Amino acid sequence: MLTLRHLAIDTVRENVAFLNRRCTRYHVEDFLGLGRVEVRNDGRSLLAVLNIVDDPAIVAPDEIGLSDPAFGQLGLAAGSAVHLVPPTPPESFELVRAKVGGAALTDGQLAAIIRDITDQRYSKIEIAAFLIACASFMTTAEVLGLTRAMIAAGTRLHWQDLGTVADKHCIGGIPGNRTSMIVVPIVAAHGLPIPKTSSRAITSPAGTADTMEVLANVDLPVERMQALVHEAKGCLVWGGHVRLSPADDILISVERPLAIDTREQLVASILSKKVAAGSTHLLIDIPVGPSAKIRTAGEAVRLRKLFEHVGDRLGLTLEVAITDGSQPVGRGIGPVLEARDVMAVLRNDPAGPADLKERALLLAGRILEFDPAVRGGSGTRRARELLESGAALAAMERIIAMQGPPPVVATLGSLVAEIASPADGVVSSLDCYRLARIARLAGAPTDKGAGIDLLRKVGERVRRGEPLYRIHASTNADFTFAQAHAAENSGVMVK
Amino acid sequence: MLTLRHLAIDTVRENVAFLNRRCTRYHVEDFLGLGRVEVRNDGRSLLAVLNIVDDPAIVAPDEIGLSDPAFGQLGLAAGSAVHLVPPTPPESFELVRAKVGGAALTDGQLAAIIRDITDQRYSKIEIAAFLIACASFMTTAEVLGLTRAMIAAGTRLHWQDLGTVADKHCIGGIPGNRTSMIVVPIVAAHGLPIPKTSSRAITSPAGTADTMEVLANVDLPVERMQALVHEAKGCLVWGGHVRLSPADDILISVERPLAIDTREQLVASILSKKVAAGSTHLLIDIPVGPSAKIRTAGEAVRLRKLFEHVGDRLGLTLEVAITDGSQPVGRGIGPVLEARDVMAVLRNDPAGPADLKERALLLAGRILEFDPAVRGGSGTRRARELLESGAALAAMERIIAMQGPPPVVATLGSLVAEIASPADGVVSSLDCYRLARIARLAGAPTDKGAGIDLLRKVGERVRRGEPLYRIHASTNADFTFAQAHAAENSGVMVK
Repeated sequence: MLTLRHLAIDTVRENVAFLNRRCTRYHVEDFLGLGRVEVRNDGRSLLAVLNIVDDPAIVAPDEIGLSDPAFGQLGLAAGSAVHLVPPTPPESFELVRAKVGGAALTDGQLAAIIRDITDQRYSKIEIAAFLIACASFMTTAEVLGLTRAMIAAGTRLHWQDLGTVADKHCIGGIPGNRTSMIVVPIVAAHGLPIPKTSSRAITSPAGTADTMEVLANVDLPVERMQALVHEAKGCLVWGGHVRLSPADDILISVERPLAIDTREQLVASILSKKVAAGSTHLLIDIPVGPSAKIRTAGEAVRLRKLFEHVGDRLGLTLEVAITDGSQPVGRGIGPVLEARDVMAVLRNDPAGPADLKERALLLAGRILEFDPAVRGGSGTRRARELLESGAALAAMERIIAMQGPPPVVATLGSLVAEIASPADGVVSSLDCYRLARIARLAGAPTDKGAGIDLLRKVGERVRRGEPLYRIHASTNADFTFAQAHAAENSGVMVK
Repeated sequence: MLTLRHLAIDTVRENVAFLNRRCTRYHVEDFLGLGRVEVRNDGRSLLAVLNIVDDPAIVAPDEIGLSDPAFGQLGLAAGSAVHLVPPTPPESFELVRAKVGGAALTDGQLAAIIRDITDQRYSKIEIAAFLIACASFMTTAEVLGLTRAMIAAGTRLHWQDLGTVADKHCIGGIPGNRTSMIVVPIVAAHGLPIPKTSSRAITSPAGTADTMEVLANVDLPVERMQALVHEAKGCLVWGGHVRLSPADDILISVERPLAIDTREQLVASILSKKVAAGSTHLLIDIPVGPSAKIRTAGEAVRLRKLFEHVGDRLGLTLEVAITDGSQPVGRGIGPVLEARDVMAVLRNDPAGPADLKERALLLAGRILEFDPAVRGGSGTRRARELLESGAALAAMERIIAMQGPPPVVATLGSLVAEIASPADGVVSSLDCYRLARIARLAGAPTDKGAGIDLLRKVGERVRRGEPLYRIHASTNADFTFAQAHAAENSGVMVK
């Protein structure tokens, strides 16, 4: 028996056990081959990846340490006596092996895998194996089965008497593309419920949750979010409190570092979250451009068809909008700057970015046409009315008031550098990926006031030495780093 | 800048950085999305997986801790100032992504991947992605390219004037199959150089290195091993000191927990190590049986052909022996018991296990026929002469004397339990996998005296209550554990 110790180490979505190399009770080598141990007592059991410790101050020879999430999952008190046994890998991993060997998995088999992943019985390398096997080959029936399994493994919201519940999702990749914050108030102003949950940025300079947090609190418990939607018809909150598709969160934590994004996994991920969120009508925005996630019209159509196929079978009313993803939308990149653009559009400020406005009207129009009372083809006109009459602004103000003030007041970064055009000419391209990276180096989204303010968009004339964009930052280190990166390659082509 | 700290935590073939959640210099969240950081200073750089620490005694807010192998690899002193930058994944991972997408990789591309893996620039999930992509589909040309890349990434031994350098390898899975320890002295006694490096057991109850270590020191530096082979023609040492195919060792550390063993990876792994070891003539032993690694004759033939194809193109003279893998070989399972069987055969003890002797003669005969002076078809006869004349025993005694005495004298475990036959009848099968597991639970190979001594083999008569085998152990816990496991399912069928 070993004494259980809780280590204040967060091994980020993987259970890790720490054993002293001079363990008094077990031969550490016996467990190294498989790299895992099973920790047991009182009918409780936990599979954990094994790390070896030489410092008795971290873990003594008669102890076993568990990382933070693992300790909580085992659920025994610190100081409890525990056994170690050779690990029994999750049974469902046999199915992953079959998939690697070329088998197509049934709904029941996919459900077994997803249950074990949700229960954290898979190590990260096992999850990687599952993802790559799926990335190599996956039938459409498997995509549907995987989506269903992910829905079943999490919480599902119900909106009772609301009837039609609209939602939108953009597959991302375009900086400044904050249409949700304009679409939601337009649709809510029309009276169609649209409970929008968004993520925070992970590899981009801003997510909708980060940008909305400049204006309002986004960190609402599920009950308050539901009450708010019943009253104001819309909300713009962070989705982290709703355990909508926990398996998807775990899969993404392995998918993202691998940067292996397949159509199949994208569709299963998005649709599982939307169905779990109780949406009945969904608009998917797929931007296409040379530096976007989807680079050709052909790819976009293939992705659209997969969304339609799976969405139909899940009982969703699903529409796909394929949009221009050739350059950033609006002027600002980073939470404060993007919030500025959004509010300028909602306030009908003539200086507000026209591209962001028109994009939002187009998408809002498609959603408004989900309402049987809106005449086919008139959605965008109705959206424009709601925007230009101030109804959308009023709806946004109501949503902001109900969500409450932001936890911290964010202001624009006071360190400012202008990146100048190297030549006279016309801006021929803006590299979404490069600009996002520079904005991120400047500190966005953690520093909400950091980012890039674009002064020239594609097709606009510029003279040599005139500014192409401004970098905003709040700390010297970030500022220097972002400038150095921009000096190397600004992301703007002038011809 | 953060202060570098060396943590006495061994994260087992993966670089891990530990950052305090309240880090004073960086936003921890900025790195969590990709789960990795790049640690830099003085032109040195290291990619590491990120763990978060809440205990300042482990890592303070102005520090960064590196796990044991990572600290050594970065090569800066503790207390050095270091930067963190967003991680740049290894460039070659783009090729892994292409492979996942269905591409076949060229020799140059495989070499780039293997170089980055050898330099520990891949995280374990990236290695898993590469392995699964290869397991899904791999051309024969890719197997050859991968083997060449693994040879190039490590040390290569040269035997200068020795000419023919023989070697043997068994793909494993059969307990007690310690033929190498008989084949090597026979071949050495004939005068054919056979420098045998072996592994220690990782998931089995004994490797050849563990069993040889009952008789002699196996932990020899490369130079002593080479001197020994020049003098005694053979050796039986642990291969851990020779960095023969370091990429393979890293790949195996991920392959094994996943238990995804493909023909292609097996061939690349074995042949890369054998070519790097300087072998010119190689005999591969493939045991086939219902509880062995290879279960059907068809599978064995496919594997044989792949060995031949790749071996030929690497310039090896390669032969494959497909042998009976239906039950354990010899009587003992576990280092001390297997060493006893081996020495009984070498001493021509009539009570020694005949199956082990005949198997070793067959394999030794195939190797002896690599010698142009040995008449075709007479190899086994020559092997028998060398064994029965005592020449092989003399060669073994010379090898043992030159390798030196074992570090610890191992004796048979004194706790003994007999597992009785449940019925009168004939032993109809012995389950290799089950018996190996029971021997391992009894303490083998860490406890060299632990294991199983088989008293009945397939086809032998037994009465109800008579012992089928004995379990040997040295500690009560192991003893109880192994007995409980044997009571549940002994691994022996009596009909």
